[in-house]
Amino acid sequence: MSSLGIFGVTGLPEITAGMDLAEMIHASAAEQGDPLADGDIVIVTSKIVSKAEGCTVELADITPSEFAERWSAKWEKDPRVTEVVLRESKRVIRQIGPVLITETHHGFCCANSGVDQSSSGAAGRILTLPVDPDATCRAHRARFAELGVDVAVIMSDTFGRPWREGQTDIAIGIAGMNPLFSYIGQTDPHGHEFHVQEICTADELAAAGELVKGNTSRVPVAVIRGFDWERDDTASMAPVLRDSERDLFR
Amino acid sequence: MSSLGIFGVTGLPEITAGMDLAEMIHASAAEQGDPLADGDIVIVTSKIVSKAEGCTVELADITPSEFAERWSAKWEKDPRVTEVVLRESKRVIRQIGPVLITETHHGFCCANSGVDQSSSGAAGRILTLPVDPDATCRAHRARFAELGVDVAVIMSDTFGRPWREGQTDIAIGIAGMNPLFSYIGQTDPHGHEFHVQEICTADELAAAGELVKGNTSRVPVAVIRGFDWERDDTASMAPVLRDSERDLFR
Repeated sequence: MSSLGIFGVTGLPEITAGMDLAEMIHASAAEQGDPLADGDIVIVTSKIVSKAEGCTVELADITPSEFAERWSAKWEKDPRVTEVVLRESKRVIRQIGPVLITETHHGFCCANSGVDQSSSGAAGRILTLPVDPDATCRAHRARFAELGVDVAVIMSDTFGRPWREGQTDIAIGIAGMNPLFSYIGQTDPHGHEFHVQEICTADELAAAGELVKGNTSRVPVAVIRGFDWERDDTASMAPVLRDSERDLFR
Repeated sequence: MSSLGIFGVTGLPEITAGMDLAEMIHASAAEQGDPLADGDIVIVTSKIVSKAEGCTVELADITPSEFAERWSAKWEKDPRVTEVVLRESKRVIRQIGPVLITETHHGFCCANSGVDQSSSGAAGRILTLPVDPDATCRAHRARFAELGVDVAVIMSDTFGRPWREGQTDIAIGIAGMNPLFSYIGQTDPHGHEFHVQEICTADELAAAGELVKGNTSRVPVAVIRGFDWERDDTASMAPVLRDSERDLFR
């Protein structure tokens, strides 16, 4: 595993609810001269999945709670957006100043439950995260298989993190490959157990994919070729989501 | 920026103090048929820098404090290692059960101040992080320039993070390019400000590099080719290290 290539898939149309994303990605990759191949890892930005799955909320339909109203007024935020952020969360991790960091129903810890006001394509409409990203990735992987290619699928989103400025892309859904690579029980050439115990390969692949996607350009899909992964059709993001009992920062 | 390549540099000897790492990387890349080229980003694992710079501690020379003794006894740790971890830190962020998460003198938040018992090459000796990773990266970049190539240099280490299992490679030093890419003030095709404000490109590049390095194989250097970066010889990791006043998790 000492060489790999990453390219973006361009030419997708504006995504609307009900579209067959996997079919469109497969076709666009072929059209640009980079047809998908067995062993590829296809990294799909969550926002196009949200659009394809109709994960949009019309703000006109939202009645904010008193809690959402009061906090939003204090920080000059739209209380209807705050209400959606709270509905998308199972708990608030930090609510300090204008910052609202939550744990989503899926178990992702991030700002504003991953709710995205900038990409919905219309004023007064916001995007929420896909309901079951692993299930979407499995469906895409199955669809790619129907189209003739055996690929892993990762869904990515752009999250902040404690301690460090700047956001990075991480994995929120996966199919076909395990998100973690374990060194537990292995020893290095000096006979010591590894300092590193487990690498979150899925997050590193998502981060690598962002390097060709960018956020201004319309490149919502990246393909990583040449990475050696083991097929595992039971894979999900579950082992990456640390139990809150084991976590020191919730 | 829609296609890039990543490869590992193999064939480096076991690193010892005083070696000219940049020269060896330059030579090894050429020998394996992948000579470095202008515009490449060279990602160097911190542990070989620690070795080249002699950042090793002989445990026999360490007298643990009473604090280190007592906590280590409780959790069956080597009190001399604990003592080094504390010396390498400017504060303890979490000390819960056997876990010790610290902020290093550089400002990195990580387990055990980045002290590494597994890679020193000898029992009774441990590796500490390089003293000034940005300065090392600048020196390597300058040395690569002497050897005829204009490359950016990133030093990587493998860190855990809150909320998610599995470690990922991140950047701890940089030279030649800014670690952050900002979208602040830009608007998307719908006229909204970006949801994503700033991407930590340096961390994504370090993560991508890990995909060809691995921790079992002896591939301590990765090269990323085809990524478009702007020359900035004032660059450092400083803007990535969030002020503790702005941080919600320290």
